[in-house]
Amino acid sequence: MRVSKLLGQRFKNPPSDCVIESHALMARGGYMKYMANGIYSLYMPGRRIVRKIEAIIRDEMDRADGQEVLFPVAMPASLWEESGRYESIGSELARWTDRSGNKMVLGMTHEEAAVHLARDTAVSYADYPFMIYQIQTKFRDEPRARGGLIRVREFTMKDAYSFHTSMEDLERYYAIQFKAYENIFRRAGAKNVISVKSDSGMMGGAVSHEFMLLSEIGEDTLAICPECGYSANMEAAEVRIENERVPSEPLEKVATPGKGTIEAVSEFLGSDVKRSCKAVVFQKNADDSYVVVYIRGDLDVNETKPRNYLGFEIHPAVITEESGIVAGYIGPVGGPAVRTVFDNSLKGIGNLVCGANEKDFHFKGLDLDRDVKDAEYADVAKIFEGAVCPGCGKPVITIKKGIEIGNIFQLGTKYTKAMNMTYLDADGEAKYPIMGCYGIGLGRLAASICQESHDDYGPIWPMSIAPWQVEVCNLRCDDPAVNATAEKLYADLEALGVEVLYDDRDIRPGAMFADADLFGIPIRAVVSPKTEERGVIEVSYRDKSFRGDVEKPGAAEAIRDMVAEELKKYE
Amino acid sequence: MRVSKLLGQRFKNPPSDCVIESHALMARGGYMKYMANGIYSLYMPGRRIVRKIEAIIRDEMDRADGQEVLFPVAMPASLWEESGRYESIGSELARWTDRSGNKMVLGMTHEEAAVHLARDTAVSYADYPFMIYQIQTKFRDEPRARGGLIRVREFTMKDAYSFHTSMEDLERYYAIQFKAYENIFRRAGAKNVISVKSDSGMMGGAVSHEFMLLSEIGEDTLAICPECGYSANMEAAEVRIENERVPSEPLEKVATPGKGTIEAVSEFLGSDVKRSCKAVVFQKNADDSYVVVYIRGDLDVNETKPRNYLGFEIHPAVITEESGIVAGYIGPVGGPAVRTVFDNSLKGIGNLVCGANEKDFHFKGLDLDRDVKDAEYADVAKIFEGAVCPGCGKPVITIKKGIEIGNIFQLGTKYTKAMNMTYLDADGEAKYPIMGCYGIGLGRLAASICQESHDDYGPIWPMSIAPWQVEVCNLRCDDPAVNATAEKLYADLEALGVEVLYDDRDIRPGAMFADADLFGIPIRAVVSPKTEERGVIEVSYRDKSFRGDVEKPGAAEAIRDMVAEELKKYE
Repeated sequence: MRVSKLLGQRFKNPPSDCVIESHALMARGGYMKYMANGIYSLYMPGRRIVRKIEAIIRDEMDRADGQEVLFPVAMPASLWEESGRYESIGSELARWTDRSGNKMVLGMTHEEAAVHLARDTAVSYADYPFMIYQIQTKFRDEPRARGGLIRVREFTMKDAYSFHTSMEDLERYYAIQFKAYENIFRRAGAKNVISVKSDSGMMGGAVSHEFMLLSEIGEDTLAICPECGYSANMEAAEVRIENERVPSEPLEKVATPGKGTIEAVSEFLGSDVKRSCKAVVFQKNADDSYVVVYIRGDLDVNETKPRNYLGFEIHPAVITEESGIVAGYIGPVGGPAVRTVFDNSLKGIGNLVCGANEKDFHFKGLDLDRDVKDAEYADVAKIFEGAVCPGCGKPVITIKKGIEIGNIFQLGTKYTKAMNMTYLDADGEAKYPIMGCYGIGLGRLAASICQESHDDYGPIWPMSIAPWQVEVCNLRCDDPAVNATAEKLYADLEALGVEVLYDDRDIRPGAMFADADLFGIPIRAVVSPKTEERGVIEVSYRDKSFRGDVEKPGAAEAIRDMVAEELKKYE
Repeated sequence: MRVSKLLGQRFKNPPSDCVIESHALMARGGYMKYMANGIYSLYMPGRRIVRKIEAIIRDEMDRADGQEVLFPVAMPASLWEESGRYESIGSELARWTDRSGNKMVLGMTHEEAAVHLARDTAVSYADYPFMIYQIQTKFRDEPRARGGLIRVREFTMKDAYSFHTSMEDLERYYAIQFKAYENIFRRAGAKNVISVKSDSGMMGGAVSHEFMLLSEIGEDTLAICPECGYSANMEAAEVRIENERVPSEPLEKVATPGKGTIEAVSEFLGSDVKRSCKAVVFQKNADDSYVVVYIRGDLDVNETKPRNYLGFEIHPAVITEESGIVAGYIGPVGGPAVRTVFDNSLKGIGNLVCGANEKDFHFKGLDLDRDVKDAEYADVAKIFEGAVCPGCGKPVITIKKGIEIGNIFQLGTKYTKAMNMTYLDADGEAKYPIMGCYGIGLGRLAASICQESHDDYGPIWPMSIAPWQVEVCNLRCDDPAVNATAEKLYADLEALGVEVLYDDRDIRPGAMFADADLFGIPIRAVVSPKTEERGVIEVSYRDKSFRGDVEKPGAAEAIRDMVAEELKKYE
């Protein structure tokens, strides 16, 4: 490809909405163009990167016995009504009406479509297991599109669905997918990727993992143990608290005028915040009824945990005068008669300070085992730096940020049951197949790799996904000798099957090199009057790991071998 | 791929909505599954066929200097307002509103997106010409989805857009695309494909061609000259009528009681239908105002022609009492004071019968040159079997049906002007680039080839797009020797890079062969106790052109060579 004919401009200043480097570089480098909030077109370099990622993913899915299929983008709402998600998913599901008045949706994930494709067909246990996947456009009406291709509304995704007749078989296959994901990220050149246990959220199911590319710009917070390798999304990271048991004292109401926060009251009473029982109030989305969560005063609630534990959506409460809740002075003794959950951090701890459900009064000496009957305990705490690792028990948890670049779920029978998909088992009984699902966003992976692998001047694409493998820079197309050498090198490399971007423009070397940095092609071959004089081609690697001359005779073959050597790193 | 694990069933009776063979066979063969009107999922065999077509198209587009890009499926309505198509296109454009209340559309074609991608970038004449293309999902809310993948609402399409600085350059490139299209259809194995001049319709522009696969189930009617090769879509086929001049007679009103049709009045008056002036009435969509088209009594109006000539949408009229139009007795003398067009077939013809705009009365002796001032003539007639060929002038036009499997348009500056895309020309002036666009529907092409190439038992896929190249049938998997030979052949062929579907099921040979016919794989290799006894593999071609034994030693290599030989036909 000749740069003179390549559509897309490189420019110096990023668009004002670019707050992260990969977004700025991919906008400045002519990879993509903004069309609307979270909606982009891709220029040729961007499209080529995504196609290469696509090829890697397809290869790994085929190796994992996947059958490539295609589901529709536009689906009838009736299918989503069957699964219940037409109601349960909010406005991120794009809904519309076709010309005949039928309710339609745009696919943001395809569990329903997968069940629809399989349910009349995989009717005997002998038809199982199988996995189907597609690589297709999806639309999710994200409220907070950001970071260029990191979080968009329209995206290309690989989504795979496996069907099994036993949990054991799902677990066996889940491990195969897990390995396939590791392969995909390694082959695409993503370096700092870890898998974490995750919250399954709206997908349903029990076990799930997210693959996280560690990055300061990540939106996900991860709990990682440097000792044993444990890692989990903060929402799924179990918090283990060991409390010192202290002798019980009698429950005593004390005046705490104006001390409406745990910190204030602890200071006022001269007690440790760790010896207090804090109330955090939520409301159920469906009916605004209140839910009170109690937790040890020094800890915070991770909102996703009570949501999953309770099994319904909640939001931070607005406490009104009519609610009967005394904000700032809530406590479990004589507290509001609403659904109540105690965090595990309050287990086996005596002698606590808590609200007395009366303005300006607290209790001292709370002993939950003694004072609260049938308290319901759960893990709803937010994990923190230095927390006890649920894996090895050492207090060494570190908190990092990550970009979610893939996820795998053990869905179970959530969709097959809801949509009445059954098969006849060997014992003659009709049973629901057990599903797993496995997703990767292609554009996000491309952008994440750019985020991980760049310098101030542009992306440093791994050879396996680079838009082209080699860039030939012709520094003097007006010099017949230089021009002839560059043109020949371009033609020779292409004849050898090397993917070449050829900068044939009559521009200053500085401008050409600035563009080359933005193209981020792993190997650069420069032809100039100086190299011509020396009878060589100057070769340099974008990652600065090599710079040197190769003799003109056989230069194309030498460069092809360098490409092959680089590619090996991503096998 | 083992058939035992392949998702999708083959069955005997087509779904009741299948009215054409390719639809029935692709449904019965487990290629696709109906989800909603005009919306299908594809099983693995269907997906593989489409992917092979995709690869052929991509190769031809790349050879034609195409840059592969990607446009969004979901686009802001504002972009379509710029071009004017948000208003001008009817309900086939799917419109919806996103969570923030922004008006959105689903892409049914991407001229607007192409201009959006290029307009800030291709700013100098030196950046031209260039071509960008994508292969992407589109949605068109067809009122009459039919024929399985022949006419759907959601489809995968290759759409390409070229930009030029002169009409000459567009024409030069248009010829390259024309050739690329011929290559694509030949390589995909479509046999009876012709190109016809077409009506540009809503795309705008002057010159356009459709590629038609001739088929009785086609929705398009084509005028073809067997003598000179002229061909055109009926809507674009020029009708040339040579009239015999006869001496004029005076205009005379005659009573024609109850003779409200041209046939009836001609019979009543004993005159030739060819010597009558028939009125066909339309209404303008926008305001329901009337348009009267006069044409020679033996001819019909092709509705698209007056629509294009007038430049606005029309529909057949509903004539009411208040309209002032006397249905059945309309004529150009003292006729309704509405927009009036005369077909060229009425030129130079004297002595006609026509309506007298009064119930039960006609005129005889109409001479348009004498009796109607400033008559506006245009070609609005529907071409017919035996019409004069506009190419060679011989009266030998034949009418055939075709399926449109591709189209190419010279768009001109319609979109660049509307969306204000300019470049700076060598002379320093800002100018609008000239566009061409080039589309192919991938699923429709697959279904059309199936329609053209099948027998009563299933599709006969060309080797170049067959879902697999070879099917190995293991007729007795319970016979250890047969089973070992079949498994080895499967493994050997795969090791040689041959695409194999392996039927490893324990079913009756009749059922296996019935399925094999539905898979339509070009080469079949059968292993049975009989072949085992003879020490051979039985090979047969799906198109019945060959059947014979190959020796077991070297069988895989022999079959691989057969595949290669077949593939050569589609190079």
